[in-house]
Amino acid sequence: MQDTLNYIQENKQRYVDELFELLKIASISADPAYNQDVLDCAEKVAEHLKNSGADQVEVCETDGYPIVYGEKIINPDLPTVLVYGHYDVQPPDPLDLWKKPPFEPYIEKTELHPEGAIFARGSADDKGQFFMHIKAFEAMMKTNALPCNVKFIIEGEEEVGSKSLEGFVKNNTEKLACDCILISDTHIYSREQPTVTTGLRGLSYVEVEVEGPNRDLHSGLYGGAVPNPIHVLSRMIAKLIDEDGRITVDGFYDNVLVVSEEERAEMNKLKDNPEEFKKSIGLEGVEGEKGYTALERTSIRPTLDCNGIWGGYTGEGAKTVIPSKAFAKISMRLVPYQTPDEITEKFKNYFEKIAPDNVRVKVTPHHGGMPYVLPSDTKEYLAAKKAMETAFGKEVLPYRSGGSIPITAMFEQVLGAKSVLMGFGLDSDAIHSPNEHYGLFNFFKGIESIPLFFENYAKG
Amino acid sequence: MQDTLNYIQENKQRYVDELFELLKIASISADPAYNQDVLDCAEKVAEHLKNSGADQVEVCETDGYPIVYGEKIINPDLPTVLVYGHYDVQPPDPLDLWKKPPFEPYIEKTELHPEGAIFARGSADDKGQFFMHIKAFEAMMKTNALPCNVKFIIEGEEEVGSKSLEGFVKNNTEKLACDCILISDTHIYSREQPTVTTGLRGLSYVEVEVEGPNRDLHSGLYGGAVPNPIHVLSRMIAKLIDEDGRITVDGFYDNVLVVSEEERAEMNKLKDNPEEFKKSIGLEGVEGEKGYTALERTSIRPTLDCNGIWGGYTGEGAKTVIPSKAFAKISMRLVPYQTPDEITEKFKNYFEKIAPDNVRVKVTPHHGGMPYVLPSDTKEYLAAKKAMETAFGKEVLPYRSGGSIPITAMFEQVLGAKSVLMGFGLDSDAIHSPNEHYGLFNFFKGIESIPLFFENYAKG
Repeated sequence: MQDTLNYIQENKQRYVDELFELLKIASISADPAYNQDVLDCAEKVAEHLKNSGADQVEVCETDGYPIVYGEKIINPDLPTVLVYGHYDVQPPDPLDLWKKPPFEPYIEKTELHPEGAIFARGSADDKGQFFMHIKAFEAMMKTNALPCNVKFIIEGEEEVGSKSLEGFVKNNTEKLACDCILISDTHIYSREQPTVTTGLRGLSYVEVEVEGPNRDLHSGLYGGAVPNPIHVLSRMIAKLIDEDGRITVDGFYDNVLVVSEEERAEMNKLKDNPEEFKKSIGLEGVEGEKGYTALERTSIRPTLDCNGIWGGYTGEGAKTVIPSKAFAKISMRLVPYQTPDEITEKFKNYFEKIAPDNVRVKVTPHHGGMPYVLPSDTKEYLAAKKAMETAFGKEVLPYRSGGSIPITAMFEQVLGAKSVLMGFGLDSDAIHSPNEHYGLFNFFKGIESIPLFFENYAKG
Repeated sequence: MQDTLNYIQENKQRYVDELFELLKIASISADPAYNQDVLDCAEKVAEHLKNSGADQVEVCETDGYPIVYGEKIINPDLPTVLVYGHYDVQPPDPLDLWKKPPFEPYIEKTELHPEGAIFARGSADDKGQFFMHIKAFEAMMKTNALPCNVKFIIEGEEEVGSKSLEGFVKNNTEKLACDCILISDTHIYSREQPTVTTGLRGLSYVEVEVEGPNRDLHSGLYGGAVPNPIHVLSRMIAKLIDEDGRITVDGFYDNVLVVSEEERAEMNKLKDNPEEFKKSIGLEGVEGEKGYTALERTSIRPTLDCNGIWGGYTGEGAKTVIPSKAFAKISMRLVPYQTPDEITEKFKNYFEKIAPDNVRVKVTPHHGGMPYVLPSDTKEYLAAKKAMETAFGKEVLPYRSGGSIPITAMFEQVLGAKSVLMGFGLDSDAIHSPNEHYGLFNFFKGIESIPLFFENYAKG
């Protein structure tokens, strides 16, 4: 193992340089204008896998963006770890809030990252993280330290709901057969308190449309006598959450797993400083479901958020219009045992129910995902915990994240294997926001932890 | 007079051709990208005034877009009519809802316009309408029928609040001295029921901003534990109007002129078919302030409308973000004796008052305008009524419009003259909307009515 760690130490600068090349590709899966960049990125990932020593490397076509595959089978009798990651990234807007262009990576020191952090869209989510696995694999190969088999699937549609992945996995169960899945697409609690993510929330994402008059109207001539779809939509959104912060959708909480007082006490040990939390995002006060801590609200409780709203005139100056339509994007984070189909259906029914008679509403589902839990007594969890404890020199705790990686549930169902969410980002990495970044400390700790995980897991 | 009407009859086709040239200029004052088009349009208007026989034609510079001036003084002892119009137009978006490009005028027959209507941005508001005055003036000049003095001011900032007009009028009170102001920038009740507009609503227009977290956040990691500015803004908008359709801003109705039951009964004689009203804009049901008819809601009662809303991700696909900020444009239509300064101030105080402590809100005033009333026993009203009765061959009624022409109050204050709102459009012209149009019938009836107005007014 020491050889491997030495090799990593000697190649740090090259690893960063190579990651920079990957970050320069604007692989925005949500926007068709970037189609070619996403395809180029897939080719680049395949090239890296090959160069690192993987066999059978293939850019597998799907109905959407390709999935990059590679493997190293050293002995069919040994366990197999399937590494999953995604090479697509979130849209970077609002662009004007980036200090430098989102696809021109650079390193800058910050208060949390005195060694410097890599700033670029995708640096933490997920290029910087899946690339750690390719580089750790390279280090194990170069130092003859790979203790078991490894397979890679790096997809290009994670940010738009992994539309092609399930079909691909179902059609390739033999090729992808494995004992566990290893994913770095989450964050640790803090540098001082490393964690392994043991729970993820699911997701239901819909777009809603409210149509009033069948054309835009002059607000002077019609104002006061017709339903204004912006007002109607605002009133409907206001109704979705009550004064106690509870979601009003009929039956929304029916299947929510009630977490025991014991477990809640345990998880609240992690509790950070509420003042620091507010300060870090510039808030005077927080809000949320009554009776739960901020940590609980973002992990063991389901939530509902408008992610976008638009309607009417939004340009410069003033236009006195009553628009025909107003729109919103609304997502709900789910916990065990809610399912996206169930919640999307319940939302649709409720939204239609609360719509006044004088408008027409439409609810269009986007992608969804199941919630996920990894028990902390599993071999997978323990291998990750021990690996990170060695790398960080600190005790590692289990942690439930508020985010969603919908495919973990699917992997378990189709491949019969548990996913280990060994992510190395920080909460403050600004993923999905302007100025996304990934600490060099985190990047290298990740590369060091991965061979240790393989060692523990192969032994265990 | 018959000579003048004959001249008009013989030149109809040329009038339409000339108007088409004017409509091809994209004089969008709200959007700086169209700066040169607005300036070009001013030059074109000046050229038309000159060619029609006006003296002292001038493109007068202002701090904003120029005001085009021209006059014909035949005898200083005779009365002077000041014609006002505007050559700027509303932004045409949403562009994809136009059947043909907004600045490529064409004629098409419709159910309401069997003779055809001119489709183009600005056809009714206001190029097609002020151009009637230039052509009627040309006809009177060519047939030696101008019975009194006339002055023209055609401005280029009406759609953005006439920012430079007041200063210009104040600095040129001698040049603009007149006995009445004649404006065609409104509509008649219907082809069968011509009307003169005797009341206009005022306007207060603000932009609001709600800021929650100081940066965009991942809705999975933060959702449920922070104030989402879209939700907060939605709740605040929902609070602005109560269940009876009344505006909740403190003191909003304090200065509202209470219209007598008698006058309300009189105005409701005009009452159209509510089913037709709903059908014309594709609505199943209407809404508004309790206790008032649709006609009253859009004329003698003040209103509040969101004209635009935006925040978060509004592109294609799904993005799981909690935005830092959400925005809305909100306008209020005012009635006598509300004032825009008073109402803007009251709105600002109320909006700040209802904002929860955990967000920061900002209210930025755009332009405003005073409400206006022209009593129906004035010489100005009676000259217009009689002119239109001759041209249409029908009885003409007074009509209060819900729209705003804020400058009428200013003209009265600075020039001491009443404005006559002799507009010829139809409610269904889709001004401020896609597929704006202006009936050929209306265009020609307007050109015929104007010399009749001059005759009546000069005699009166």
